[in-house]
Amino acid sequence: MAVFAALASPTLADPLPSWNDGATKTAIIDFVENVTDPASDKFLPEEDRIATFDNDGTLWAEQPLYFQGLFALDVLKKKAAADPSILSSDVLKAASSGDLKGVMAGGTAGLLELLNVSHSGMTVDQFQSDAHEWLTTTTHPTSGMHYVDMTYQPMLELLSYLRDEGFSTYIVSGGGIDFIRAISDKAYGIPPQQVVGTEGTTKYEEVDGKMVLMKHGGLTFYDDKEGKPVGIARHIGKRPIFVGGNSDGDFAMLEYATSGDGPAFGLIVHHTDADREFAYDREGHIGVLDRGLDEAAARGWHLVDMKNDWARIWSVNK
Amino acid sequence: MAVFAALASPTLADPLPSWNDGATKTAIIDFVENVTDPASDKFLPEEDRIATFDNDGTLWAEQPLYFQGLFALDVLKKKAAADPSILSSDVLKAASSGDLKGVMAGGTAGLLELLNVSHSGMTVDQFQSDAHEWLTTTTHPTSGMHYVDMTYQPMLELLSYLRDEGFSTYIVSGGGIDFIRAISDKAYGIPPQQVVGTEGTTKYEEVDGKMVLMKHGGLTFYDDKEGKPVGIARHIGKRPIFVGGNSDGDFAMLEYATSGDGPAFGLIVHHTDADREFAYDREGHIGVLDRGLDEAAARGWHLVDMKNDWARIWSVNK
Repeated sequence: MAVFAALASPTLADPLPSWNDGATKTAIIDFVENVTDPASDKFLPEEDRIATFDNDGTLWAEQPLYFQGLFALDVLKKKAAADPSILSSDVLKAASSGDLKGVMAGGTAGLLELLNVSHSGMTVDQFQSDAHEWLTTTTHPTSGMHYVDMTYQPMLELLSYLRDEGFSTYIVSGGGIDFIRAISDKAYGIPPQQVVGTEGTTKYEEVDGKMVLMKHGGLTFYDDKEGKPVGIARHIGKRPIFVGGNSDGDFAMLEYATSGDGPAFGLIVHHTDADREFAYDREGHIGVLDRGLDEAAARGWHLVDMKNDWARIWSVNK
Repeated sequence: MAVFAALASPTLADPLPSWNDGATKTAIIDFVENVTDPASDKFLPEEDRIATFDNDGTLWAEQPLYFQGLFALDVLKKKAAADPSILSSDVLKAASSGDLKGVMAGGTAGLLELLNVSHSGMTVDQFQSDAHEWLTTTTHPTSGMHYVDMTYQPMLELLSYLRDEGFSTYIVSGGGIDFIRAISDKAYGIPPQQVVGTEGTTKYEEVDGKMVLMKHGGLTFYDDKEGKPVGIARHIGKRPIFVGGNSDGDFAMLEYATSGDGPAFGLIVHHTDADREFAYDREGHIGVLDRGLDEAAARGWHLVDMKNDWARIWSVNK
């Protein structure tokens, strides 16, 4: 009889073992059980179970700089070694010498310049192959871990749990769509067509007698802030019912998801653990969470306190 | 024993009953059986079985004008009845009086003007609700059928067959992404996230105290010709292995799909049936097929002769 009981109650296993028991974990499981229970008035069919997650700071770390920014620095260094004339501005000179403060001093325009120079002039395939190798073999400046291992174990469990319950899980990131797709399947089990991100100019053109997709400089779509609901409209065409973010760049996406007529769950990862990860919120260059912190409670969004809610941080044990 | 034989051989049923026996039908089935047979050296896992189809002239009719163009004319007429001052150009005046030749005289710029005026100033939801109603209740000027019924039965069977064999089926159209999504699930069983199309400016903004996705004038992405491989790169991130089109607007997509390293199938619907549908190819305003007709054989693409290959045209019997 014990065998049959176990078979009949597969949900007895904890779907979120790296989450400490508490209000956030309980709220997640209650929500999922409600929208997947045909007897519940909150029930939604599988095609409406759309979940979208920010990437930097929500699914993996983002300090001291977005991983894509650190990758861009390394690419620029290599390119400049072959052709120093590409370092045509103070920001690019700072970047090539690893001077993060000098890069930051250039603001968003400086970061875009760095991305334009480092992320263009190759095919999409070559870029993704380079990014995949970098993410799986290079080590992070402070943790010493491979970047691909700096994903958050509790969030991987949440993605798996949602998929097991009939959700489609998407990334909706301010980061570059080609960069994230280079690793999304391996890191998160999320295939390329479920990644929405910032898009650079891509052209289908002939190079050396072959038709290829080439990356050029310049942005065609910026998937951050008010851009996130637009990116969701373009790529998914449906309002998500589960959204995870960590910064005010995710505010509009959380607002959009939780202002529909049906049930919806908003989650904000709050970086409170200086010992195991990083502690930051209202101030800084990266991942600022200010308005979201003020309004989360009134809007019914759930704040994840990384220090207390997560029994484990990283997907790979250090 | 007969029961067991039937169960063991579900493929004995013809998956494409509206296709006449012949080279094209045989080639389709051979290709699908090869890439889905684990013992074949052409085998591909399900995640690589991406199929993309043009919409106008490939999945449904496109004469005497793209259905979206006819919809735009009707919307413009309604808008002009309420506010005649919006008819600020010869093209718009021609359009509001149903003068198709006058609209065509304005070329692409005129069509874009018509789309800008008729497809902006409402939410995405409202636009899709209007388009859905129009497609399911208005009748086509020459056939008298509802537009939603002017899909091609053989192509619906092909979409179902591919999905049954583990393919993901996408629309990749020069038509508007919001317009197609209004009907794609009902007409083709294709959900919104598997529709790629031309994109207008969409903004997430506050209207009457609510945050909504508003349609504005102006194109942000034109998903035709060389834009189709780019649209595929943005939305799917993988090279398709099965592509269907009907005009030179699909040439680049067919070329892209069939120039990879693995197996791929290119199909061109050739409009040869003036009695049951329309007959046209090398000349005209709509659906010009010229280069594709010249190069199909050399490139190994399969031409569908609608008159001889299709036992039935429409998904609904007239």
